[in-house]
Amino acid sequence: MSDVHAARRSQLRDRCAAAGSAAALVSRPANVRYLAGAAPPGAVLLLGPARGPSGPLGDVLLCAGPPTGGSAEGRVADGVRVQALPTPAGDAAVAAADLAAAAGADGLAVEEHDLSVSRHRALGSVAPRLRLADLGCAVEQLRLVKDEEEIACLRIAAEIADQALGELLESILVGRTERHLALELDRRLIDHGADGPAFATSVGTGPNSGLAAHPPSDRRVEEGDFLTVCLGANYRGYRCELGRTFVIGTSPADWQIELYDQVFAAQRAGREALAPDVECREVDHAARQILDSAGYGAELAPATGHGVGLENHEDPRLSPAAMGKLDACVPVTVEPGVHLPGRGGVRIDDTLVVRPEADGGPELLTITTKELLAL
Amino acid sequence: MSDVHAARRSQLRDRCAAAGSAAALVSRPANVRYLAGAAPPGAVLLLGPARGPSGPLGDVLLCAGPPTGGSAEGRVADGVRVQALPTPAGDAAVAAADLAAAAGADGLAVEEHDLSVSRHRALGSVAPRLRLADLGCAVEQLRLVKDEEEIACLRIAAEIADQALGELLESILVGRTERHLALELDRRLIDHGADGPAFATSVGTGPNSGLAAHPPSDRRVEEGDFLTVCLGANYRGYRCELGRTFVIGTSPADWQIELYDQVFAAQRAGREALAPDVECREVDHAARQILDSAGYGAELAPATGHGVGLENHEDPRLSPAAMGKLDACVPVTVEPGVHLPGRGGVRIDDTLVVRPEADGGPELLTITTKELLAL
Repeated sequence: MSDVHAARRSQLRDRCAAAGSAAALVSRPANVRYLAGAAPPGAVLLLGPARGPSGPLGDVLLCAGPPTGGSAEGRVADGVRVQALPTPAGDAAVAAADLAAAAGADGLAVEEHDLSVSRHRALGSVAPRLRLADLGCAVEQLRLVKDEEEIACLRIAAEIADQALGELLESILVGRTERHLALELDRRLIDHGADGPAFATSVGTGPNSGLAAHPPSDRRVEEGDFLTVCLGANYRGYRCELGRTFVIGTSPADWQIELYDQVFAAQRAGREALAPDVECREVDHAARQILDSAGYGAELAPATGHGVGLENHEDPRLSPAAMGKLDACVPVTVEPGVHLPGRGGVRIDDTLVVRPEADGGPELLTITTKELLAL
Repeated sequence: MSDVHAARRSQLRDRCAAAGSAAALVSRPANVRYLAGAAPPGAVLLLGPARGPSGPLGDVLLCAGPPTGGSAEGRVADGVRVQALPTPAGDAAVAAADLAAAAGADGLAVEEHDLSVSRHRALGSVAPRLRLADLGCAVEQLRLVKDEEEIACLRIAAEIADQALGELLESILVGRTERHLALELDRRLIDHGADGPAFATSVGTGPNSGLAAHPPSDRRVEEGDFLTVCLGANYRGYRCELGRTFVIGTSPADWQIELYDQVFAAQRAGREALAPDVECREVDHAARQILDSAGYGAELAPATGHGVGLENHEDPRLSPAAMGKLDACVPVTVEPGVHLPGRGGVRIDDTLVVRPEADGGPELLTITTKELLAL
């Protein structure tokens, strides 16, 4: 994918030039990885000035240590020069500013949403003549619409999550703790080729079911429980999300069936609302109104979905206040959930890719059934 | 421990008052947890002004969502008022600045090493009259010397790590991948009561042995390998570190024995150098010089140890450039390691608490044997 990375970097370079900065410093790990193909801990990417007294600097990945391999990390893209820090304990961002100034750059665009005030100050003091500008979320914006290679990674990540969950459902669940179920899912994700879980696997039973990002506890699965599982695989850095709720035992209670149907209807409405040029808040509204009118409005999270990619939470955000419209090839989650304090609840979470109607509409990546299974 | 938290907060309040700030905003999660007993995701702690037009504000934990329970999280300490954000998707730090200004605070000390430039700017614009100062690492400094309750947590964390590693060594290792060994260790950490791993468990075999923080790969354990394992338990937020290197098969090669002896000698020298009022760099030097004179100086990491506590890497840093001296009741790791590219290496890592000679000298928390075991 090296030429892909080079193309992304030249896109960013054009934006910087247009904004009047000859050089850019990318410090946010997911952004570094997107542009350089790898992001060793503490590494930053410097897009050097095209020309300067000491000639073109090119693109430099400044690493605190030697860039480790490790399948999760990927390899550094061609056209990026890897350079270790002059001082082992130093800050790669400071070294990058130093390098840019030495290369004759007058301005440097930095990620002010990522750099701490202290680090930003350190940049200023190591290169006082360098005019620091704000790169803003330029790289995040480039990352918003995925290419087919990125979507292929997400498709594999989803397949892995589906497999891991499917295998768990074939085993005995009653009597096992939330912690152990979460650990087994993590193991199965790895077994099926994930670089790791995409985020902390969440397992909620009984009163903990339906909660978002519930940290697995020592509570054991009991007959009659709702069981909510939310997991995802990290495949080559790309992260999907899959959430399902089940009933333990043969016959779900009426309130469980009723609640499940409402959340299912809301989640389907959200999925069906996904299309290019649709307002993000409309997708949220489609799901939210169904649960609102069912009287669960107060229980709802501020958002019913979000983008996924190299990070588990990316733009766009599917919420009432969200601005902007969806684009084709944007992967998002649709994950309404209702939790009734003391009783538990239901959460259903899919990862889909926005596609135009002509291409068959939204592409569902997480295909585990959504009918209410009694296990 | 609620009175403990209150005492910590009043210590911090005194420092702020001395520095001329009536109020302080703590945003770094480990610092929030240290002062409030819990740190839900996105939460910040506001130490409000003691008096103001609207009376004393007191200490407020501003949470993005309702503070979840979850054994890893702990409960919010007494004397801290928990408040949800006015806007669900908002930034707790911005809301805190707003609150402080409304309470009549004129100055607010913030953690400039934690807040991004963008968040810091947002604070300034929501409360333009509020004079923003830098709290610096005041809380990190308070965290440096641990009380006996904190050390008790570290002791339990170390015990859990020892147990998990001990059980792994009883199982068959040849043929299993680094990933699976790491996952089994994680499961055993949880089995023995850890809230989770203290950091990403590292397992390196053959050419990967001896590397620091090696991400487990699909390489399988083979006869004759060095096997380096580094793990830690997170117990009530406190994180220990335990690293050992073993030989697979009955008879280690001469180079393995020779290298192991050198690293062992260096690690022992580092441990024995631990005492109150000793320069941090002296501890590093004690370990480093042995490997230097053995010709491994170039292979050494910039530091041979570091503090542990609510974070896996805390002050002090044991490195040639480190300033400052050790104190009693400061827990640190001593972890020299040598990696020979293509061949592998040795890493030995203990967590100890600095104690005066009169109390028996350094307290070793991780007691797994350090003799070279052939498994």
